[in-house]
Amino acid sequence: RIDGARLLASLEELGRHGALPGGGTNRLALSDADRAARDWTVARMRALDMAVEIDAIGNVFATHAGEEDLPPVATGSHIDTVRTGGLYDGNYGVLAGLEVVATLRAAGRRTRRPIQVAFFTNEEGARFQPDMLGSLVHVGGMPLEEALAVRAVDNGALLGEELLRIGYAGSAPVGRPCVDSFVELHIEQGPVLDREGLAIGVVEGVQGICWTELTFTGRSNHAGTTPMALRQDAGMAAARVAAFAHELSQRYGGRQLATVGALTLQPNLVNVIAQSALMTVDLRNTDGAVLQQAQAELLACARRIAAEHGVLLSHRSLADFAPVAFDAALVDSVERAAHSQGLATLRMPSGAGHDAQMFARVCPTAMVFVPSRDGLSHNVREFTAPEQLVQGANVLLQVLLERADR
Amino acid sequence: RIDGARLLASLEELGRHGALPGGGTNRLALSDADRAARDWTVARMRALDMAVEIDAIGNVFATHAGEEDLPPVATGSHIDTVRTGGLYDGNYGVLAGLEVVATLRAAGRRTRRPIQVAFFTNEEGARFQPDMLGSLVHVGGMPLEEALAVRAVDNGALLGEELLRIGYAGSAPVGRPCVDSFVELHIEQGPVLDREGLAIGVVEGVQGICWTELTFTGRSNHAGTTPMALRQDAGMAAARVAAFAHELSQRYGGRQLATVGALTLQPNLVNVIAQSALMTVDLRNTDGAVLQQAQAELLACARRIAAEHGVLLSHRSLADFAPVAFDAALVDSVERAAHSQGLATLRMPSGAGHDAQMFARVCPTAMVFVPSRDGLSHNVREFTAPEQLVQGANVLLQVLLERADR
Ligand SMILES: NC(=O)NCCC(=O)O
Ligand SMILES: NC(=O)NCCC(=O)O
Repeated sequence: RIDGARLLASLEELGRHGALPGGGTNRLALSDADRAARDWTVARMRALDMAVEIDAIGNVFATHAGEEDLPPVATGSHIDTVRTGGLYDGNYGVLAGLEVVATLRAAGRRTRRPIQVAFFTNEEGARFQPDMLGSLVHVGGMPLEEALAVRAVDNGALLGEELLRIGYAGSAPVGRPCVDSFVELHIEQGPVLDREGLAIGVVEGVQGICWTELTFTGRSNHAGTTPMALRQDAGMAAARVAAFAHELSQRYGGRQLATVGALTLQPNLVNVIAQSALMTVDLRNTDGAVLQQAQAELLACARRIAAEHGVLLSHRSLADFAPVAFDAALVDSVERAAHSQGLATLRMPSGAGHDAQMFARVCPTAMVFVPSRDGLSHNVREFTAPEQLVQGANVLLQVLLERADR
Repeated sequence: RIDGARLLASLEELGRHGALPGGGTNRLALSDADRAARDWTVARMRALDMAVEIDAIGNVFATHAGEEDLPPVATGSHIDTVRTGGLYDGNYGVLAGLEVVATLRAAGRRTRRPIQVAFFTNEEGARFQPDMLGSLVHVGGMPLEEALAVRAVDNGALLGEELLRIGYAGSAPVGRPCVDSFVELHIEQGPVLDREGLAIGVVEGVQGICWTELTFTGRSNHAGTTPMALRQDAGMAAARVAAFAHELSQRYGGRQLATVGALTLQPNLVNVIAQSALMTVDLRNTDGAVLQQAQAELLACARRIAAEHGVLLSHRSLADFAPVAFDAALVDSVERAAHSQGLATLRMPSGAGHDAQMFARVCPTAMVFVPSRDGLSHNVREFTAPEQLVQGANVLLQVLLERADR
């Protein structure tokens, strides 16, 4: 059994890096706060005598040696957060992995295969796109050069330069992971487990994610003198496309998720018709075909509305991930471990994207969820009860042990 | 006749303060660039031996003495601009007024009444609201204390502090103007005169202006895990209200203008449901009753949509000006002056708000428009041909002369 107090204390300590005044953290990928959190986590890995490697995209891997020199059983997650994030998203999976290693060490217990605990660069996708960028590059899903050339949405910095700046441009190669399997522990981030009063989510897969950036370019002009018919109002075109995304979701009975999280107008003044509007649309669906259909409808609508307003439309895909199914046997073993600990479970898809979905391309993969109070995440009030955090970590311990001893 | 070359050169010189790299100016009210432009303009006034007074809200009045000590015939406009403004909006009216004085001086011509040339604080309403704030306070339409306590939309600074900072918190009293009449020369800022090939717009009044700031407060949450029905999406509520403003305008056949110039989401990230949205709506109509009706419909819609999304709505009026009719006799004299100079005219309402509309509360008032190429304004490519600028200034000269000699 893991040491619950130690796990909780480590979550609290990591949460100090980038802490916001009112609670929660702002630790955008490759920011100064992310660097501080990385340094703290690496120190902790070394304190556990783990061999630490950093790869060329800044992913960090710490290995606890096994009895045999076999591909490791891997776990982990991320420590970057959104701008107004909580203390658990990502952090929990990394620190629970380290807690598993600490527990094995304390018990003098060696596994047959090594156990690896990793954290991946820019999982959130809040500062650089796509999300899960580090694990995507790690499994060979995106060329390194392309990833290093991605620009930050906040200050336009190159990802590659930011890695150098914070000292995390490592030398380990990317693209050909050698790993037995991957199991990620994470908070659910949605309301299902909390509402049903269940301890463990047995994650069967991840829904599809489609992120698009739409840029509308019109012409700034006077709000009082320009007849409606002569306007090239980029802001109004964007707002109408956002409203359409909402309708689209309603039309599919709400199972097609649609979010317009970012919308920026220029010059953004009360009496000036917007010259440009930059907008993101996040579409998700567990059904990949419906997701494609929704995305096609969105773009068709954007084209039509842009034409109606006489504004130029350009669009670019920021993320495009088909739904992922995890390994049936590994998923079963998560369920068995939970039941053997007397914990109630639910098989469910993941609404959020996770590093695990990238590993599913190259090895048997599964995930364990614990509840999120009120389904809150990407919110400073994100919360999971201490006992639930400990329960999840013990399930992880058992699944890793079983797999590493195989 | 005025000296066209001198007028054009002065426009170009004033345009250097806050000049943008690609043309146009950024001279938000009470910014450093506005200070520099004010200093330059005041120096020019003094060079014409005019008596310069600054009032408590930063309006500047320069008086060219008449033969008798009577209330002056006043003209002028503003020299603040929007963030991406042109060289003519406001500036033209101020510099043409000074050019009229320079012309009279050069000709050794005195009028019976004094001629006053003024520029008013924060006409644009881009940095502080409402627009026409300086002239509104001047005519007693807003208490000085209330105006000094208005906060800037860009950095939250108090208007009163900004006036002190740039050295334009003057000592002349506000609220009881003593003026014979007011005539403002301005670019049309809309497409009518340009399209019809006419030289002079004889402005009969100004349409009503209603600015509202809407704040939607929801709950940030995860874009992938939060079911549509459980969201409190402030951004989506705002976008749908913006789309409604567009429909509203269409429903009234486009004569009801609606502009959403500013919309800001927090935290403005692709995969985070917006916690808050701050939005402005600018509604205008020449028919005050229809404008009130449109505003009521907008607020009702905002309330309904906010409730649908489970977000809080608060709203605040940023400007609320009923349509204004100018003085019939003074309007006639503008028309006569133009015709006597062989210029083709059109009687028209003003789409934009102007300082003149505040003077209409206290004295006979009128305005003269010259064409704006392609109807562009609040745009760095705002343009009026030199000969049209000169024509407008000569009309102003004649109207002021007639009135001041009365
Ligand atoms: N787990 C998590 O919040 N990942 C961020 C990527 C996403 O938007 O789903
Ligand atoms: N003339 C002018 O652009 N005034 C600004 C106030 C308005 O928005 O109409």
